[in-house]
Amino acid sequence: MPHVTMEYSANLDAELDMKHLCEEVHGAVMASGLFEAGAPRVRAIRCEAYVIADKMPKNGFLDNVLKMGRGRSEEDRKRLGEALFATLQKATEHLLAEPYFALSLQIREIDDAFSWKKNAIHPRLRA
Amino acid sequence: MPHVTMEYSANLDAELDMKHLCEEVHGAVMASGLFEAGAPRVRAIRCEAYVIADKMPKNGFLDNVLKMGRGRSEEDRKRLGEALFATLQKATEHLLAEPYFALSLQIREIDDAFSWKKNAIHPRLRA
Amino acid sequence: MPHVTMEYSANLDAELDMKHLCEEVHGAVMASGLFEAGAPRVRAIRCEAYVIADKMPKNGFLDNVLKMGRGRSEEDRKRLGEALFATLQKATEHLLAEPYFALSLQIREIDDAFSWKKNAIHPRLRA
Repeated sequence: MPHVTMEYSANLDAELDMKHLCEEVHGAVMASGLFEAGAPRVRAIRCEAYVIADKMPKNGFLDNVLKMGRGRSEEDRKRLGEALFATLQKATEHLLAEPYFALSLQIREIDDAFSWKKNAIHPRLRA
Repeated sequence: MPHVTMEYSANLDAELDMKHLCEEVHGAVMASGLFEAGAPRVRAIRCEAYVIADKMPKNGFLDNVLKMGRGRSEEDRKRLGEALFATLQKATEHLLAEPYFALSLQIREIDDAFSWKKNAIHPRLRA
Repeated sequence: MPHVTMEYSANLDAELDMKHLCEEVHGAVMASGLFEAGAPRVRAIRCEAYVIADKMPKNGFLDNVLKMGRGRSEEDRKRLGEALFATLQKATEHLLAEPYFALSLQIREIDDAFSWKKNAIHPRLRA
């Protein structure tokens, strides 16, 4: 934990370096101070087929979901969401400046009673 | 909002035009009257590796999730789900007629307290 | 139902046969005795762009979500999760043995009031 999954319309590949965006999202997540270095898993899923709003070919979307284990306060989660969304807005400034782009983010908590995990990276980074 | 994400087994590419299906889903969502023109983001995610039911090579699935902000009544959400599912059934009629296909849809609400969004398409369409 | 969606970093394609992994997951799900033969839909989603933990190129992740309809006891769901996670750990043993891999699983229930489905495979297998 945490996981960030970014679904996006394939036409954004011409406008955004998704690997770089993953790095910026990763940076915002770590800057919150809420997570261990071995924890974040940020990834993007490219959607080849899509239809957005009024179907203009230039229309694009980037929809982000951050899921995290329980245990952080509501205030911490709101602060995290605001900081991450600010990062996303800055990274897509050129897209938001034109009337063809929609950006979104949701944070979801994971029910620890129905969550299993094994992270082999943690021991290396805790050492 | 709303978002529709359609996960499907890659073998359906020979049976369905996913771009066209996105358009039909978009049409059903808009026909509900619950959303603004700038809101819907419908997309498909192709799953290259999959195993379904009794592992027959012809087995395929299309699993749809619609997520939307809170504020609509339970009745409105049920009506939306039924209309969207009717559209999906019609679009996959030829697949449902053979015993190798499974179709599903779920609607989920988004917790507005942990949701952030900026839609640059809205101002253009509201004008 | 049930659905298993496995998101994974693209670098794992060199380490894991995802089709085979889908089969092992399918086997663990069926071995629980909780589901009909026509029900399971297991699939993998390859994530081409990602950033994990300390950004080492060898870092990889496999994140699994099982969603299922309501009606099974908490005990049954825990037993299912433990058995499935044991299968996932065994299948990724060689990855977990090195400090560059993170494995995770969550189980989520689907709200039946907002779920629609039509499974054409069931009649064939129930016959």
